[in-house]
Amino acid sequence: MHDISQYQDFFINYLENQSISKEPKNLYEPIKYILGLGGKRMRPVLTLMASEVFDTDYKVALPAAMAVEVFHNFSLVHDDIMDDAPLRRGQETVHEKWDLNTGILSGDAMLILAYQYFEQYEPVIFRDLAKLFSKTALEVCEGQQWDVDFEKRNDVTIPEYLKMIEYKTAVLVAAAMKMGAIVAKTTKKEADLIYDFGLNLGLAFQLQDDFLDAFGDPKTFGKQVGGDIIVNKKTYLYLKAREFSSLEKASELEKLFSLQLEDNTNKIATAKTIFNESGASKATQEAIEMYTLKAFETLEKMDINIEKKAILRTFGENLMGRKV
Amino acid sequence: MHDISQYQDFFINYLENQSISKEPKNLYEPIKYILGLGGKRMRPVLTLMASEVFDTDYKVALPAAMAVEVFHNFSLVHDDIMDDAPLRRGQETVHEKWDLNTGILSGDAMLILAYQYFEQYEPVIFRDLAKLFSKTALEVCEGQQWDVDFEKRNDVTIPEYLKMIEYKTAVLVAAAMKMGAIVAKTTKKEADLIYDFGLNLGLAFQLQDDFLDAFGDPKTFGKQVGGDIIVNKKTYLYLKAREFSSLEKASELEKLFSLQLEDNTNKIATAKTIFNESGASKATQEAIEMYTLKAFETLEKMDINIEKKAILRTFGENLMGRKV
Repeated sequence: MHDISQYQDFFINYLENQSISKEPKNLYEPIKYILGLGGKRMRPVLTLMASEVFDTDYKVALPAAMAVEVFHNFSLVHDDIMDDAPLRRGQETVHEKWDLNTGILSGDAMLILAYQYFEQYEPVIFRDLAKLFSKTALEVCEGQQWDVDFEKRNDVTIPEYLKMIEYKTAVLVAAAMKMGAIVAKTTKKEADLIYDFGLNLGLAFQLQDDFLDAFGDPKTFGKQVGGDIIVNKKTYLYLKAREFSSLEKASELEKLFSLQLEDNTNKIATAKTIFNESGASKATQEAIEMYTLKAFETLEKMDINIEKKAILRTFGENLMGRKV
Repeated sequence: MHDISQYQDFFINYLENQSISKEPKNLYEPIKYILGLGGKRMRPVLTLMASEVFDTDYKVALPAAMAVEVFHNFSLVHDDIMDDAPLRRGQETVHEKWDLNTGILSGDAMLILAYQYFEQYEPVIFRDLAKLFSKTALEVCEGQQWDVDFEKRNDVTIPEYLKMIEYKTAVLVAAAMKMGAIVAKTTKKEADLIYDFGLNLGLAFQLQDDFLDAFGDPKTFGKQVGGDIIVNKKTYLYLKAREFSSLEKASELEKLFSLQLEDNTNKIATAKTIFNESGASKATQEAIEMYTLKAFETLEKMDINIEKKAILRTFGENLMGRKV
């Protein structure tokens, strides 16, 4: 096995050798652009890593890893349209740099291109990968729809929120790992265990993202700290704070999360105080810890040697220890 | 074999028995809505018909036919956003009835749902169907992009236009038929021949659509007669008229096709006169005839009995004899 930065290099090298710039240019240039914007490439790295956990050369997993990354970028392009986001990784979003129609159509093409990467496998593997991919992709759409729906609701429950982030974020992390298991032709039991490992890690990852959005270090957190508070996003922190608050305090919080301000300095400070004093911050950190531990417990059940378990565990610890 | 209206009934019955109304409602209701708007169901009917041409019960082809219809409707939902179209089959378009985000996301989900219908087949058939589907779907995106690009260009050539309508329209008709051949496990040669039959029929169909858009009977043509002229669409009629005209006449035509008017009565009449007098109308009818004959010639090469050839020929003749 290799370390994470090596898997990143292997993947980026493969990505850069894909010839995506075909005609018509206005369809394929935006695809090249978004795929070239960078990022940690966490999902494809997990696919490569999973294949080697099950004793199969990472090279075998490269097309599947590529499918995962292309799909992830498809969802970014369409989500950025829906969120009206001007920037992605510090650069213009596709619909900003080109236009709405280009964003829609290039996104559509990416979803199809993702499926095409599975064609490099034999029929049974192809079918298993494409089936898992379709199920996952549909869940990601459902998660996105719930996220949109929740914006207009004031009665979102914690279980509903957890289901939303499971679908919107965690299932793709889980599927990325299971794809590595599928190309390695491991047993169904092992493939399902690594899926569960990824799912719990994905949930912990998203909850930590919620937490860092409010409490991260502005110097190292990639996005604007307080961004969720500014746009009144009802994250786990918010929902827990409401749950733990008196009726009076809860209504104060609801009022705070309906404001649209020019200067958000005070709003962010007030929200963070409520998150801390209500116990929501602590509850969120406990939930992150709980899902991380659940992931590690799943790891123990797997029929792989102790060295490989240690590598997956280290990946999880690094991911959760991130300050960014 | 059955007749066309029977295949339509079989398909509609299958479609109505699909349980698409899952949660979240805002994702799946628009899908149910667009699939329920009707239409001739030409593409899925061709899939069913092709499977029976190759001696396989149409029931085997129903999931593949459904995939084709779901994909076709996906492309309608996203194209209607790009064209800013308020109406589809006389009803509100999805992005009008709901909103832009719903149109994007429900469309995405439909593209994935289409792939899922192939899961009902064994791995080799699944792989063959999904491969053909991905290739076709990507070509449809490329065709749509060219269509968008051509709007801003004044130097589109006839071969470029033909390539655009081939990708945007004809490949899906061809693939619909080839899918019937794939589920019937016919030889590659026969599958390729029925693809060619569908491709030429699809080209004839689109050219006839261009022709009827200008010269169709308002009572029977489903869309607004003169619609392409109103929006300055450079169809085959326009391109041929420009080719056949003197420099002076061509520049007059170009000027006419840059106007945006309140009352289009005179513009439509003038354009139609130019189409007729330049010989463009005749050239378009000859092209329709040529592609139809090419389709029928392909039919002759196929290793199926004379009765089945006659049924496919009748389908083509009916399609080309349409006044709507």
